[in-house]
Amino acid sequence: MSAACVADILPVILCGGSGTRLWPASRASMPKQFARLVDPKFSTFQATAQRVADPATFARAAVIASSEARFIVAEQLAQVGLSADIVLEPQGRDSAAAVAVAALHAARRNPETVVLIMAADHVIGDTAAFVRAVSAAAVGARAGYTMTLGVEPTRPATDYGYIRRGAPLPEAEGAARVERFVEKPDAAGAERLIAEGALWNSGYFLFRADLMLAELEAHAPDVLAGARAALDAAVTDLDFVRLDAAAFARAPKISIDYAVMERTTRAGVLPVSFPWSDVGTWDAVWQVLPQDAQGNALRGRVELIETRNSLIHSEGDGLTTVVGLDDVVVVSTPDAVLVASKARSGEVKELVATLRANAHPEADAHLRMYRPWGWYQRIDIGERFQVKRIQVTPGGRLSLQKHHHRAEHWVVVRGTAEVTINDRVVLVHENEAVYLPIGSMHRLTNPGKIPLELIEVQVGSYTGEDDIIRVEDIYGR
Amino acid sequence: MSAACVADILPVILCGGSGTRLWPASRASMPKQFARLVDPKFSTFQATAQRVADPATFARAAVIASSEARFIVAEQLAQVGLSADIVLEPQGRDSAAAVAVAALHAARRNPETVVLIMAADHVIGDTAAFVRAVSAAAVGARAGYTMTLGVEPTRPATDYGYIRRGAPLPEAEGAARVERFVEKPDAAGAERLIAEGALWNSGYFLFRADLMLAELEAHAPDVLAGARAALDAAVTDLDFVRLDAAAFARAPKISIDYAVMERTTRAGVLPVSFPWSDVGTWDAVWQVLPQDAQGNALRGRVELIETRNSLIHSEGDGLTTVVGLDDVVVVSTPDAVLVASKARSGEVKELVATLRANAHPEADAHLRMYRPWGWYQRIDIGERFQVKRIQVTPGGRLSLQKHHHRAEHWVVVRGTAEVTINDRVVLVHENEAVYLPIGSMHRLTNPGKIPLELIEVQVGSYTGEDDIIRVEDIYGR
Repeated sequence: MSAACVADILPVILCGGSGTRLWPASRASMPKQFARLVDPKFSTFQATAQRVADPATFARAAVIASSEARFIVAEQLAQVGLSADIVLEPQGRDSAAAVAVAALHAARRNPETVVLIMAADHVIGDTAAFVRAVSAAAVGARAGYTMTLGVEPTRPATDYGYIRRGAPLPEAEGAARVERFVEKPDAAGAERLIAEGALWNSGYFLFRADLMLAELEAHAPDVLAGARAALDAAVTDLDFVRLDAAAFARAPKISIDYAVMERTTRAGVLPVSFPWSDVGTWDAVWQVLPQDAQGNALRGRVELIETRNSLIHSEGDGLTTVVGLDDVVVVSTPDAVLVASKARSGEVKELVATLRANAHPEADAHLRMYRPWGWYQRIDIGERFQVKRIQVTPGGRLSLQKHHHRAEHWVVVRGTAEVTINDRVVLVHENEAVYLPIGSMHRLTNPGKIPLELIEVQVGSYTGEDDIIRVEDIYGR
Repeated sequence: MSAACVADILPVILCGGSGTRLWPASRASMPKQFARLVDPKFSTFQATAQRVADPATFARAAVIASSEARFIVAEQLAQVGLSADIVLEPQGRDSAAAVAVAALHAARRNPETVVLIMAADHVIGDTAAFVRAVSAAAVGARAGYTMTLGVEPTRPATDYGYIRRGAPLPEAEGAARVERFVEKPDAAGAERLIAEGALWNSGYFLFRADLMLAELEAHAPDVLAGARAALDAAVTDLDFVRLDAAAFARAPKISIDYAVMERTTRAGVLPVSFPWSDVGTWDAVWQVLPQDAQGNALRGRVELIETRNSLIHSEGDGLTTVVGLDDVVVVSTPDAVLVASKARSGEVKELVATLRANAHPEADAHLRMYRPWGWYQRIDIGERFQVKRIQVTPGGRLSLQKHHHRAEHWVVVRGTAEVTINDRVVLVHENEAVYLPIGSMHRLTNPGKIPLELIEVQVGSYTGEDDIIRVEDIYGR
């Protein structure tokens, strides 16, 4: 197999999904694919991008993400030294529309490009085995099949869909035709499926761009039309390709499984046996993490007494302790704590729905909010004041803004700030402070080479985020 | 019974004990008797003081507390509009020494004064019934008995001591001689004791000062000698009576139960049936709190899914959630979280020992630290900085001090500060800031009528509490 041929695989990472079942670590403001839940060094999105970074095998990746996630995507790619084409969905339209965009994007390069669709939030234990499997499945894709990776089951899981294998696929060694996709079964059904040789549906698949476009044309023409119009009218904004909102909204919301995979006559599956998990629940996170002799998976500052088979995840500076419990999940973050029966951790989804219904801001927003210029985090709030810690990345620049109801005191604790106050520009160094009176027009920039950190003390009758008049913004907000 | 006679009861509240089994709400820096764990408005110490505040029945109370707790005691009494004689133990010497001090203190007033010894950390559900019982028991005390209150058991508790009743006491209606004190039994032993009519040992007792001194002289002369010398050499310091440390250290460490109660021939017990608990564990706290239809006792911001018979205590601004668990205790504070099996909540004591062994500061120190002038709380910390919120009560005045390794920025967010910087004194109002360079001599005072709140941003190479040179302090520290 020549290198030129193999590098024809174009990876597309789908970054949708809010991962509410992994609340409170995962929230809409920083969903699980961008959080460092499994590997303390990399998010699953970063691990996914790194998995397909070898130019001998893969073309430049594309990422399909929500508009809100655009700066997280760019920042996290930069952190691991990678770049990608970043296509922004103005709203989520489920996976068929995203796959259509992926196929259209790939076809512009070369209609016969093999596209590898990947979820951003899965864990794979053996990158080399994964790459080998993808290369093998690509052979079937080039031969005209939409190929899926089917994971050899290691337990009778009821939280995965299954794939029943049909006749062997002569065009790709080890692969078979898909006989049928099976929805998540009950426990007895899972046992039966495994006995019949069925595989877990990993959600990874590969196809030739031109053939997927033909499948979409045949089975979901509205999806394809919406995606095509959205990409044709897309605007390139900074480094992002922003799909046209009105056109994309016309693509019906449907999964690629329903729209194409269950209808096509040319679906193939390659059995794979590398460790794989969609880490969809805290129970699944516990399963993929290293465990100690008592079966506990621990993160952060944790102390236990007589506790077994549990996941204790302690974020931030806090100390989390457990006494005399088995099979629990405890996730402690600076503003929210989850304690759950491990077996019932899937119900966290209902919990988050309850939190939303009861208007708890912690349902969707993290305490630390990422922005294109860095992040801020509330560290204290009182009746007429609020205190934030703000970090600005080198070169980062907040919008030119003013507030009607609050004055601000900034104390620089690291790095150097360039502060514009009305028509004055001053440099503020570590251990220096600056005062921004109510109504003053101001702007904060990090002109230096290291992150700028400052403590902001807001004083006034109202300190809500919406008291902000943005006059100019380099990030197009 | 004349009022003059009844008012001869002198209540003495013993405030010792660190309440580690109620960690993390209770810690050495603010033990459970001063925390608002059961009643959100009053600590059990405050409730205890209020229970004996009626001058028709009780003389001015005395409080025996540790030196460290002196400002908390004074502040909490002031909050409920009460005053008391506050006697400070330079170190804990167990209850016999404290009772000896109480008897000596009372005898100075009148040797026949009846003393009521009370723990600061118990919950009593019916104050009127309690006062009636104390008045009835006082009759036995005046007749020469050391009277205890024996609580009618409502369950076969294994975490309380028991009292077996002997012959009726003709001198006090309803009372009996104590046949025997029984240590905490096992479950079968508890059932047997209850069948025999034994009562829970509440730890409350009453005696005539002169007779207790005679008992101590007979059974524990070293304890009495140490206590007497410590009180004779005591120093009155601000509003406190500070026992002499060297003398008090000579009193052997022994409980009043071992030293006197189990040896005296004149112990009586009055059966009482008001609701009583020593709230010694989180399980006991759950039992005394109001519960919802699912048996849950909730405090603070809490959301539950399918959870029963649990105590969820959420302090501060954070949100605490539980999914699919029964019979658990979850206590969430801004810097530490406890999750425990309710049945095993007594093991929190071992947990705290482990935390100490592993040098976790949360074992003993709260995030919010109370001082004679108010409190401070760390709200953020980083590599070369720390941020605190500081509240100074009206008239409060911090020591004149300086730091070698940090500069401080103070931003006033409420009230007015009088700030001394070297030889300059300035008033700093809300929304104003002041800078204290490294090495500058400074002092903070609240000259106003409302609490002063400020945000302190410390910047420097070391921000530990021990970088402080105190030059002058109105609180004698």
